[in-house]
Amino acid sequence: MSNTFGNIFKLTSFGESHGIAIGGIIDGCPAGFDIDLEAIQKELDRRKPGQSKITTQRKEEDTVQILSGIFEGKTTGTPIGFTIANKNQKPEDYQHIQNQFRPSHADATYQEKYGIRDYRGGGRTSARETACRVVAGAIAKQILSTKGVEIYAFVKSVGEIKLNKNYKELDLKNIDSNIVRCPDNDVATLMINKIQEIRKLGDTIGGTIQCVVKNCPKGLGEPVFGKLHAALGGAMLSINAVKGFEYGSGFEGTQLLGSAHNDTYEIAENELRTTTNNNGGIQGGISNGEDIYFNVAFKPVATIMQDQDSFDADLNPIVIKGKGRHDPCVLPRAVPIVDAMAALVILDFLMLSQTQKL
Amino acid sequence: MSNTFGNIFKLTSFGESHGIAIGGIIDGCPAGFDIDLEAIQKELDRRKPGQSKITTQRKEEDTVQILSGIFEGKTTGTPIGFTIANKNQKPEDYQHIQNQFRPSHADATYQEKYGIRDYRGGGRTSARETACRVVAGAIAKQILSTKGVEIYAFVKSVGEIKLNKNYKELDLKNIDSNIVRCPDNDVATLMINKIQEIRKLGDTIGGTIQCVVKNCPKGLGEPVFGKLHAALGGAMLSINAVKGFEYGSGFEGTQLLGSAHNDTYEIAENELRTTTNNNGGIQGGISNGEDIYFNVAFKPVATIMQDQDSFDADLNPIVIKGKGRHDPCVLPRAVPIVDAMAALVILDFLMLSQTQKL
Amino acid sequence: MSNTFGNIFKLTSFGESHGIAIGGIIDGCPAGFDIDLEAIQKELDRRKPGQSKITTQRKEEDTVQILSGIFEGKTTGTPIGFTIANKNQKPEDYQHIQNQFRPSHADATYQEKYGIRDYRGGGRTSARETACRVVAGAIAKQILSTKGVEIYAFVKSVGEIKLNKNYKELDLKNIDSNIVRCPDNDVATLMINKIQEIRKLGDTIGGTIQCVVKNCPKGLGEPVFGKLHAALGGAMLSINAVKGFEYGSGFEGTQLLGSAHNDTYEIAENELRTTTNNNGGIQGGISNGEDIYFNVAFKPVATIMQDQDSFDADLNPIVIKGKGRHDPCVLPRAVPIVDAMAALVILDFLMLSQTQKL
Amino acid sequence: MSNTFGNIFKLTSFGESHGIAIGGIIDGCPAGFDIDLEAIQKELDRRKPGQSKITTQRKEEDTVQILSGIFEGKTTGTPIGFTIANKNQKPEDYQHIQNQFRPSHADATYQEKYGIRDYRGGGRTSARETACRVVAGAIAKQILSTKGVEIYAFVKSVGEIKLNKNYKELDLKNIDSNIVRCPDNDVATLMINKIQEIRKLGDTIGGTIQCVVKNCPKGLGEPVFGKLHAALGGAMLSINAVKGFEYGSGFEGTQLLGSAHNDTYEIAENELRTTTNNNGGIQGGISNGEDIYFNVAFKPVATIMQDQDSFDADLNPIVIKGKGRHDPCVLPRAVPIVDAMAALVILDFLMLSQTQKL
Repeated sequence: MSNTFGNIFKLTSFGESHGIAIGGIIDGCPAGFDIDLEAIQKELDRRKPGQSKITTQRKEEDTVQILSGIFEGKTTGTPIGFTIANKNQKPEDYQHIQNQFRPSHADATYQEKYGIRDYRGGGRTSARETACRVVAGAIAKQILSTKGVEIYAFVKSVGEIKLNKNYKELDLKNIDSNIVRCPDNDVATLMINKIQEIRKLGDTIGGTIQCVVKNCPKGLGEPVFGKLHAALGGAMLSINAVKGFEYGSGFEGTQLLGSAHNDTYEIAENELRTTTNNNGGIQGGISNGEDIYFNVAFKPVATIMQDQDSFDADLNPIVIKGKGRHDPCVLPRAVPIVDAMAALVILDFLMLSQTQKL
Repeated sequence: MSNTFGNIFKLTSFGESHGIAIGGIIDGCPAGFDIDLEAIQKELDRRKPGQSKITTQRKEEDTVQILSGIFEGKTTGTPIGFTIANKNQKPEDYQHIQNQFRPSHADATYQEKYGIRDYRGGGRTSARETACRVVAGAIAKQILSTKGVEIYAFVKSVGEIKLNKNYKELDLKNIDSNIVRCPDNDVATLMINKIQEIRKLGDTIGGTIQCVVKNCPKGLGEPVFGKLHAALGGAMLSINAVKGFEYGSGFEGTQLLGSAHNDTYEIAENELRTTTNNNGGIQGGISNGEDIYFNVAFKPVATIMQDQDSFDADLNPIVIKGKGRHDPCVLPRAVPIVDAMAALVILDFLMLSQTQKL
Repeated sequence: MSNTFGNIFKLTSFGESHGIAIGGIIDGCPAGFDIDLEAIQKELDRRKPGQSKITTQRKEEDTVQILSGIFEGKTTGTPIGFTIANKNQKPEDYQHIQNQFRPSHADATYQEKYGIRDYRGGGRTSARETACRVVAGAIAKQILSTKGVEIYAFVKSVGEIKLNKNYKELDLKNIDSNIVRCPDNDVATLMINKIQEIRKLGDTIGGTIQCVVKNCPKGLGEPVFGKLHAALGGAMLSINAVKGFEYGSGFEGTQLLGSAHNDTYEIAENELRTTTNNNGGIQGGISNGEDIYFNVAFKPVATIMQDQDSFDADLNPIVIKGKGRHDPCVLPRAVPIVDAMAALVILDFLMLSQTQKL
Repeated sequence: MSNTFGNIFKLTSFGESHGIAIGGIIDGCPAGFDIDLEAIQKELDRRKPGQSKITTQRKEEDTVQILSGIFEGKTTGTPIGFTIANKNQKPEDYQHIQNQFRPSHADATYQEKYGIRDYRGGGRTSARETACRVVAGAIAKQILSTKGVEIYAFVKSVGEIKLNKNYKELDLKNIDSNIVRCPDNDVATLMINKIQEIRKLGDTIGGTIQCVVKNCPKGLGEPVFGKLHAALGGAMLSINAVKGFEYGSGFEGTQLLGSAHNDTYEIAENELRTTTNNNGGIQGGISNGEDIYFNVAFKPVATIMQDQDSFDADLNPIVIKGKGRHDPCVLPRAVPIVDAMAALVILDFLMLSQTQKL
């Protein structure tokens, strides 16, 4: 709840976008695992601003410093504290919005709830916070990879441009081969052009990310309320700008008949497997060993480079100026965040499932 | 987690479909509220089997007995224990599936996770469990109604038959005016006919439920991980057969430009209001006083009245016979469950938000 | 918190002393363990009223009914719901105290906190609630016993009469050989006589219980806040009438010098063992394989058979009449409760420790 | 659990004694409260090493840096991240104990549980961790003080030297008037002399701290498991070296008869008050408005300046050399820690109690 995520492998995060630093604490990390710090930084670099022509041009290093919990390269089972300094702060850029409520931002709701807010760059509401999720997710992924678990998130649609292939037809190793992070280069080009076009309009656009978890151990999920897909859905919906989540056949599957939707079984290598996977690797809230896959919907970024009518804290009409350095489309930078949240859930539930093994 | 839902107003439930009883404990219920027991029973009746020609014909009374926590008609702040006896049990109906893994059921995953399962009627995996959610939700709704909060869930689509109106054009008081619980009687008739047709085929069909929360207090939601919509999404995804969740503009909204998607402000009765509501009443994870609305996708019921090839626990091929009394479409009976889960989340977050008010 | 105890193996309880029933839900119970229902009942019988001449003469069967979670004699990993009917209710016995605040009872604090209370027999504040702990603890003990863990609680003192032997000099199998549950029959006789003498005075008396956990697996405890002894202490202090907790050398150990208090090591059977055990089997919050032992202080029962001056809810002076059927000393019946809470903590932490074992 | 403390006002901490820094995150802090950073530092200074002749002579500044959650001097409701750099690190001092198991330290249990440990200065097991509690507690105290709550912890005994006065006879403003933090200067002198004498022997000594909470609001406590004293006890027992907790009449009260122990009522200023306070301000787990008071037992520090026989990780016999800079008695520096933990519990439960106030 609030700023802690997870049951056993837990991330607690802090930090405003224009404070001294953001950071977090990973508690419950199992001991004795090798941690590759460069691999963490590499994931952060996938999320950092200024990484390509289709993201915000704001430059920020986003260098993580680990303060505890890792000793001589290995996790010790004690909490891992870390910080990421806020370096490219320009609080003066935000002075003018101090009393302004930007449309579709959380300015007014934070003001309502807390009676006070750090307005600089959105403060706590900024997606900058998600960098901490990427750090924790990167550690989770390293631990999961020792169990063979692989997680692939990629951009599936940008506005109306959609990758209409099943993920099985794609080479998921190609995700980072282009700047929009869509593993089909032809569709990726369309997406990149679209985003550049939208940027020129001073506008923004949304899209969807698909995530596939391969080799997830069987038996993860804690029914009836802690179903694996409920945890994944809750995790994804906690990411800034997310408006929807579906797994397996999702919303489209509601139009199928049961006889077509049911995943019948087959035996492969002496193991029970399903012939289709409409249930997205989860049955009754518990992983069944098939690929877990799901889609996440992101709304268009609320900050646009166009003037917008609005009101200030005293309810006087104002005009919000469209200026600053912002993302025309959040999708490419959101890919590592989806990755990270998926990893946090899977590792947490893997650890939870161990409790049964007395 | 597992069988407890909520942070402050908490439901813990128990029970298999063919055990002695199901039931639950509501902990954290605020003291001093009048509870109308008949209103609880009425909500249960909306969920009970055998209620109409388009649901399972299995008859079950589903009478709730409150065992504690309510004294002289009022909540006392102590836990409310309750049971619902399982009366129409026919365990012998299930003897034959003892070792069978039904396609798209949780038989195999429960067996994998726990090494043992109560196979009778699905045991804990049965949607019978949701009756306990309805009891708790009915109590939450009564408390919320004293604050003016209104919750309306209704069937928005059955297969390809879709109610294509904005909920604002509908009279939400009409939801129970027909057996499919769609507030537009013309569309409802189409849905009912469709379900009957599917039933004759021995098949099943999915659909979507929309839920609208009116007069939700401002300021509910616990960012960054406990965003109000993340909690609602996690709650809905924990309901049996749910495959997707979207709020506000949802998946469709991903195709809009930011300039079109942003909800601009207006002043009405000296209060900041939005002119549109693409953000579904929640900004930055916190309720803003506008209507909260969301859609929930339900897959077609896995139990069909057709023979299906499958395997038993020893991985021998078998044929699953299509027999018994089952729902051709779960949507009409799922309406009160969606209602209930929404009420549990809203009340829980209302109580959480009080912690700030020192 | 509130009415849920534990992190993984969790008990949630409900019920007032004079309502229809008390009961609970055990969630997180590992699957596949044989449960001996008679052994559960036997533990309840150790706690039940009317069991001997030194307890209350109120008779109550305290028969537990398991409603779910156990199938064909084995745990299934699903929640175990259970109830204990309240049969020997005499609400009319309590009508007169409806508006009375009894000294050293929770009447006034419940009224203050909740604004309402079920005054009959103390309602939720009655120690009757602890019967649910005994049920859950009995199940935990059965699971722990498959790992060799043994738990022994016994009465160490009644008023000034104290068992001045180290528990290692005692035969802990003798605990139930007398009605006061002190494993030294000579001291037990003194205690029994003392309690009878106090009863004749219409008065009550307190005492201490010692609990020893043998063969606790090494490595249990979740520092820094979830130290094993902190969890045990919190558990014991949640029992009605408990005023203190100490483990290992406890309060007396504060008078020792470090050189005398330190537990030096020896090697026995190729294992590191301590020569003394002032640390009570726990180092740095983690079990070290030595016996865990601790003392629990119980105040004298507040209900005495003497008239007491007090006030009613309107702050008018009243006289509280000493009548009814009450315990002159709670210690003998508290032994199984201490047992149970110890078992709940140890099993919960054993399950938690499994999360590390990826 | 583990490294998070609290339900609503939550501290999560991290850090090893000889890593880069220790620190923490306070989540759930209510918004809009003025925070005096100097007052936080002042509390840290009460805990810091090298503060007087009776503490360790190791010098460490212990300067806290707040990284987030406080904006323009006020809390914002977002998480407060902070760090305390580890400056006076001498890891080489600890190289020799890398494979050594020091008697009555947690070396062996950490090695057993995690299979790896940061041996430098005790790593996570060091009481250095408690500095983070002091930071969070100092913030909690500032918020509580706006409600009139006052918390006073002081040294009640050192070894056999005991302050034999009721706290009501003492001037609790005098606690910091001497270096041992005992509000009676005569007894304080005896304690100081005793500690110096013990230090010369190269030995250590334990003692007790008493804590008094004045003006605690009525109605705090969450029965049946979250009784206020159970939370206080669990909190105190989580502090390094604590072996016991008792509140109100405590262990001594077990020797009283009920008629003597019961706190009868009187009316004062139109309010129900107790004439005595054997129940230590808590009835049925809920605060009743009287002073809350409790005692905490600290064992003698395990690190002594004498040679001790022990074993290394390969179970070979070794001699542990008594050297380094250590506390002969932990009590004076533990006073602000007890203070802090009390404040964390009281504020957390005050916030929890608000949930009822719909």
